[in-house]
Amino acid sequence: MPVSKNKRRVAIAGLGTVGTEVFKYLSGHSDFQIIAVSARDKNKNRGLNMSGVAWVDNPCDMGTRDDVDIVIELMGGEGDPAYTLVKTALQYKKNVVTANKALLAKHGSELLALASSQNVSLKFEASVAGGIPVIKLLSEGLSANKIESISGVLNGTCNYILTTMEKTGRGFDDVLSEAQHLGYAEADPTLDVDGGDTAHKIIILAALAYGEFIPMENISVTGIRAITANDILSAKEKGERYKLLATAMRDNITGHITLSVAPTRVPLTSPMAQLDGALNGVMFKTDLAGDIFMSGAGAGGKSTASAVLADAMDLIRKL
Amino acid sequence: MPVSKNKRRVAIAGLGTVGTEVFKYLSGHSDFQIIAVSARDKNKNRGLNMSGVAWVDNPCDMGTRDDVDIVIELMGGEGDPAYTLVKTALQYKKNVVTANKALLAKHGSELLALASSQNVSLKFEASVAGGIPVIKLLSEGLSANKIESISGVLNGTCNYILTTMEKTGRGFDDVLSEAQHLGYAEADPTLDVDGGDTAHKIIILAALAYGEFIPMENISVTGIRAITANDILSAKEKGERYKLLATAMRDNITGHITLSVAPTRVPLTSPMAQLDGALNGVMFKTDLAGDIFMSGAGAGGKSTASAVLADAMDLIRKL
Repeated sequence: MPVSKNKRRVAIAGLGTVGTEVFKYLSGHSDFQIIAVSARDKNKNRGLNMSGVAWVDNPCDMGTRDDVDIVIELMGGEGDPAYTLVKTALQYKKNVVTANKALLAKHGSELLALASSQNVSLKFEASVAGGIPVIKLLSEGLSANKIESISGVLNGTCNYILTTMEKTGRGFDDVLSEAQHLGYAEADPTLDVDGGDTAHKIIILAALAYGEFIPMENISVTGIRAITANDILSAKEKGERYKLLATAMRDNITGHITLSVAPTRVPLTSPMAQLDGALNGVMFKTDLAGDIFMSGAGAGGKSTASAVLADAMDLIRKL
Repeated sequence: MPVSKNKRRVAIAGLGTVGTEVFKYLSGHSDFQIIAVSARDKNKNRGLNMSGVAWVDNPCDMGTRDDVDIVIELMGGEGDPAYTLVKTALQYKKNVVTANKALLAKHGSELLALASSQNVSLKFEASVAGGIPVIKLLSEGLSANKIESISGVLNGTCNYILTTMEKTGRGFDDVLSEAQHLGYAEADPTLDVDGGDTAHKIIILAALAYGEFIPMENISVTGIRAITANDILSAKEKGERYKLLATAMRDNITGHITLSVAPTRVPLTSPMAQLDGALNGVMFKTDLAGDIFMSGAGAGGKSTASAVLADAMDLIRKL
């Protein structure tokens, strides 16, 4: 079909809650033309007008298409097909936008080097803290700063569980079951409650701050399973609150970078303590700008789509 | 003197606390070459190495120099020489970075249109909330969002006075005198305590969110002079705290944009209430990303320099 020369031609891999929001927005935006989509279930009714949009069975095929400028990868997972799609797209000199924290934590170093050598962009605002533009804050807004440390509440599911435990006095298993029932936690909650998802995100932030992707196996990661109602009560009595806190810092003398994820008691008066329910928040300690804190919804279809779309619109400015 | 072709050639107008920090940073950065500076007092010892840097008596002359790519305006003031320098520089197709909120609030519409027609950038991250990159957040990080409302604590002096009044139980005049003595408030505190500075900043944020600079005379502006120790105590008893709050919103139906600045009682549990001392904070309510909050140091030489430098480094990426 005819495409305006001014439109950027987009392929979207993955049409879950985020992909559906991204599709809706881009299909109504004059600077974009959606060329192709791919998702697991072709027959699912997503309420989207797919006329003129090619359905691609194997998402990896989108990386080689001549009629695509931007590939948006929203499938998730550190391996294939996401890895092959992103790599192929970069090899074919396409700009890529992804929300995939697991992919970046594992292959970010290789993929960013590939993007750089191909002179295209690999953008990933949505991979950390959903709709809160922390990637842009760190890489552009604070670009003149040395980042002394980063700390963050980066997993909405864990924060929801911890705040609900405090509010109700109930135990971890009880609140987790309810969260699963309400759709706030996955059927397999491992990646969230054991800290892996949080670790992926702090790996990405630390890579931007310190120029190095620290491998998962070099990070001390403790989740929230062992936190009891009594722990939370005893923290509260001392004016503190449990948060699953990710931290990153670099030793000024040795240059050693230390990342960790652990349940941490923070003072009730701290900005981290104020993060209620599924909120995320990140604190950057810097040499020039001082302490910069940012918070908001760390997950959800619209919120994550906001970050994906900001990346896509950055590409419009750049291209 | 010889200049590397890869270096961006910079002129800095104004060498106060911000300008001095900007000079120090840029003179040590391989992507920049400082060509010229201008300030009120040529003989003041600022601890800067000025060798090879031209001293310009009339800052407006920097706008026409052939050997300058980027003009950084840090003089302040809504009128001349800042206005003429920025306008001239844009007319001569130079990129401009400014921290000047008064200039933008008054002439932003004209100057941004001029920059656009000249195909150069007028950047002003430092004009609102010092080192907190709220301009980038709003114009890029949230670029896919409709901004439902903006609220902010945008004047560090007022926030310092209000929090000190609450902590000590002392009156406004008493705390203001002390703040002036300590250098936290100007000898003429009018622009801060009567809300004008806050109004300039919300005008700029609203212009980015809604595409229109609302004139100062169309804004209801109330400062903090009338707040008494008793007011603060009675708020505290109800779980509230006074903040000088700027707000902006657009009516979805009429399109009418309403801006205001007024002392406002906010719940102690809100992020705004947690802003201690000279901190600034801004909350954006959006359609996709939900509520995004950002806080940090809203003033100070290094903090404001961080924002000026982020703009300069954005220009490096762009040029």
